[in-house]
Amino acid sequence: MAELLHYTTIIEERIRTWLEGLSSEPLYDPVRYIMRPGGKRIRPALLLMAVEMFNGKLEDAMPAALAIEVFHNFTLLHDDIMDDAPMRRGERTVHEKWDTNSAILSGDAMFALANDQFTTLRSEQALKMFKIFNDAALVVCEGQNEDMCFEERNDVSVQEYLDMIGKKTAALLATSLQIGAMSAQAKGDDVQAMFDLGMSMGIAFQLQDDLLDAFADPNELGKRKGGDIISNKKTFLFLSAYEQCDDDQRTRLAAAMQLSGDEKVVQVLSLFNELHIKEMTLEKMEGYYEKASGLLEAFDASEEAKAPLRAILDRLAIRVS
Amino acid sequence: MAELLHYTTIIEERIRTWLEGLSSEPLYDPVRYIMRPGGKRIRPALLLMAVEMFNGKLEDAMPAALAIEVFHNFTLLHDDIMDDAPMRRGERTVHEKWDTNSAILSGDAMFALANDQFTTLRSEQALKMFKIFNDAALVVCEGQNEDMCFEERNDVSVQEYLDMIGKKTAALLATSLQIGAMSAQAKGDDVQAMFDLGMSMGIAFQLQDDLLDAFADPNELGKRKGGDIISNKKTFLFLSAYEQCDDDQRTRLAAAMQLSGDEKVVQVLSLFNELHIKEMTLEKMEGYYEKASGLLEAFDASEEAKAPLRAILDRLAIRVS
Repeated sequence: MAELLHYTTIIEERIRTWLEGLSSEPLYDPVRYIMRPGGKRIRPALLLMAVEMFNGKLEDAMPAALAIEVFHNFTLLHDDIMDDAPMRRGERTVHEKWDTNSAILSGDAMFALANDQFTTLRSEQALKMFKIFNDAALVVCEGQNEDMCFEERNDVSVQEYLDMIGKKTAALLATSLQIGAMSAQAKGDDVQAMFDLGMSMGIAFQLQDDLLDAFADPNELGKRKGGDIISNKKTFLFLSAYEQCDDDQRTRLAAAMQLSGDEKVVQVLSLFNELHIKEMTLEKMEGYYEKASGLLEAFDASEEAKAPLRAILDRLAIRVS
Repeated sequence: MAELLHYTTIIEERIRTWLEGLSSEPLYDPVRYIMRPGGKRIRPALLLMAVEMFNGKLEDAMPAALAIEVFHNFTLLHDDIMDDAPMRRGERTVHEKWDTNSAILSGDAMFALANDQFTTLRSEQALKMFKIFNDAALVVCEGQNEDMCFEERNDVSVQEYLDMIGKKTAALLATSLQIGAMSAQAKGDDVQAMFDLGMSMGIAFQLQDDLLDAFADPNELGKRKGGDIISNKKTFLFLSAYEQCDDDQRTRLAAAMQLSGDEKVVQVLSLFNELHIKEMTLEKMEGYYEKASGLLEAFDASEEAKAPLRAILDRLAIRVS
């Protein structure tokens, strides 16, 4: 992924400079911590890829790219409180290292810091870009809220799940591509198509995550196989199984979910296999991949210009096999 | 306060219409709850007063006025989590009525909803006004963080306290006046003077709150006398006493702070009286009041145009006596 590394290196440098300019007040210590190198920086990288695909200037788009990365890390900070997550990227989460109040407040400050980046744009489109960013911020909150509500419900449909991950995960990826295209003065249809591409890509990546959690080699994955199953997460796999199964299978699924540890994972995976959930998920992913790929194909740009985004999309194909 | 009521009525109506337009998603239930009638609406009222004082149109400034009120209520929502406060305005706080996660997330959404108001402004100054608002948002976070840090420290100076309340309380009041003046196309010096007026007024109001908590008739106050003393709050009164007292008095103050209930209040107030803390606080307030009053006096506007702001300022004089 030489293309991705090229963009993430640029972003990492920008983040470093930005962090150096932050006040030394303790309020910003968690900001420095969560923004340290190690994040994937996929959203700002996508934004910059879109800029270059439409022949825009990277520098003009850097504030928006930084804003989206800061906003994304703010959501991680608050989501980790809500999920009571002790660790992230192998280190303690902010509310564990400091406390919940610091995580809430420094998160709030990060939202303001993200906003601030848009006020530095000289483009006439600055306010319009900010609106698109801020609308996405609201949609991400809605998605997170739906995800939390789903935990309490036993009747979540596969379609509701797809809508939720569209909001919680895909919307910010799509908005990154959209703002990148806007920054490069792409025409309206292309800007919309980039957003649509991002939505399909984002949903496909989430389905891939769901799939890998259940079926990937745990050594490759770097975490315990079946973590979602153990924590009763309503993933695409689980919800599809729940929708597909007959009465007998539903009884067995419910019984399996009462188990714990490896035995739970084995039993649930056995039912997933019986119901061909892996194949069904791959097929669904394939649909989103094809849509995103077709949209990328259709842009009036050289293959070379499309190569970085193409490489990102093809990570879907590689890891699924 | 006929003037204040005039403005708060306009704002209440705007909030009502705005709430009707919000999605029915559960994410927004806490927003509807915290924004219900009953808030003082002092910040948007100040903003609108500034607009009319400089002969601007109220309608042009309504989005900014609404944004500041929504933002303020968002800070209440998160502050109540941080302070573990069970009640606000005689009703359960959001994290008590729902839960902490809902209060965090709906708060985050409220920040985005506040931002959104600025994207509806057609003024060329929209982005500039948004920057001023967003800078104030960050300053409020810094003030809240300092306030939390002060709880852990025993060496907070009076000056540090004044700086903190300048950030936590006065900055948003000052920004309301500033944005109101900008919206009415007031000239740069006047915009700055309105901000300065707001800072002095805001600090004076906080000192008044500190004073009333200790010395007002509890029946008038509507809450228990000495609440700040009981909860060991580092108010202007306490910090001034701590700075003024000799070794013997400091020993007695420390001992009194170890007591509880009414006896604690009686002992601490006795020391406050011995050290003339009430008079000292009144004198400090008077200084801020005079500064704000002088700034108001100096504007090139009729007494009639200044009357609403004058009436707000004079609440400082009335309640202090």
